[in-house]
Amino acid sequence: MKVYHLYSGGKDSSLAAWILMRLGYEVRLVTVTFGTLEGWKFARETAERLGFEHEVLRLPRRLLEKAAEMAVEDGRPGRAIQFLHEKALEAIASRREVTRISDGTRRDDRVPYLDLPKARSLEDRFGVAYIRPLLGIGYRTVNELVQKLFEVEIRESEELEKSDYEVELRHLLRELGIDPLSIFPKSHYQSRVLGWKHEFIGREGRGFTPSGKPPQGSSSR
Amino acid sequence: MKVYHLYSGGKDSSLAAWILMRLGYEVRLVTVTFGTLEGWKFARETAERLGFEHEVLRLPRRLLEKAAEMAVEDGRPGRAIQFLHEKALEAIASRREVTRISDGTRRDDRVPYLDLPKARSLEDRFGVAYIRPLLGIGYRTVNELVQKLFEVEIRESEELEKSDYEVELRHLLRELGIDPLSIFPKSHYQSRVLGWKHEFIGREGRGFTPSGKPPQGSSSR
Repeated sequence: MKVYHLYSGGKDSSLAAWILMRLGYEVRLVTVTFGTLEGWKFARETAERLGFEHEVLRLPRRLLEKAAEMAVEDGRPGRAIQFLHEKALEAIASRREVTRISDGTRRDDRVPYLDLPKARSLEDRFGVAYIRPLLGIGYRTVNELVQKLFEVEIRESEELEKSDYEVELRHLLRELGIDPLSIFPKSHYQSRVLGWKHEFIGREGRGFTPSGKPPQGSSSR
Repeated sequence: MKVYHLYSGGKDSSLAAWILMRLGYEVRLVTVTFGTLEGWKFARETAERLGFEHEVLRLPRRLLEKAAEMAVEDGRPGRAIQFLHEKALEAIASRREVTRISDGTRRDDRVPYLDLPKARSLEDRFGVAYIRPLLGIGYRTVNELVQKLFEVEIRESEELEKSDYEVELRHLLRELGIDPLSIFPKSHYQSRVLGWKHEFIGREGRGFTPSGKPPQGSSSR
């Protein structure tokens, strides 16, 4: 029951990973990089603190360049982020050993988001199941679960040490002499998970439930 | 962390209930009836076998009559089922003590299904969070989890002892002299959950994970 889960170290992808684990899946976190920065290190650090298996998947820099072109053309990042996310999902799904992929996309996300035909197409083309644990829950529920589970750091995007597409996209735009603030919204808060909220949550505590109690015997809920 | 979960005794709503429990919610199952049949007894029986709290919510018969009119007018049941589901969600959400509602609707369902504006409207009008644990998963994932968790009985709709809207809707149509087969598709398989798959799963075993192992100590996954 292994699932390969796209992971940025943020609260959404961390929460989704926890849900997958609670459903009995063996979760392997995958952080994508295009090789322009080492932001994946932050996701790795969080993955280690949470006790998940983690790998870094390097995708071709030309995908990031194509995304940058889209962002410049549109004057906003939506299509570029969507493009990178689809390429990342496809790269993981195309691997022989992969039969389940997942991500932390939410009901309220505009991008990245695969509509039903796209989700089914991904599954059919690569013979995988695509699981989105957060798709059926809104911000209230995400927030109440995240608050119970994780220590989270929230900062503006420009400052945060994170491992998502946006960081490398901003970096490449800067390299191209384009101000990322002309494309990304100004006050755009991002989150990074620092670890489990309670001190007793280590590798052992992955069965932790948001009741605030450590798992004990058969009453692990 | 109490959630009121619309429950038919079928595999989808049972799986969704299990997921909610695994996320740390206190799950109360709610089975709707319009008072024309006692099909809710099957859902109650399954709820008891699975060890969940359960209640029966009686809605006005006129809602079922309105749904029957829609089904006859359309020659198919989609709009009627959608109407009844929305009324059921609203009835639960409108109760003072309710802050979270949920159901077993899936990514691949056409009806009942609330699109994003409808889901948000429900949440805003009643001040609740609406949680759909199965929205982000496809039939493959539903099947693999159901197979690990539950003993399931599958039969054609006309025969199955179940507690969903369809049973009462078919019954009312028959009372009105209308053959339900002129409205519902002929070969339409329905599922009913009979209990947990493994013998050790009783009230104690609700922390069960699909690994097939009973929860033990802190390694409950």
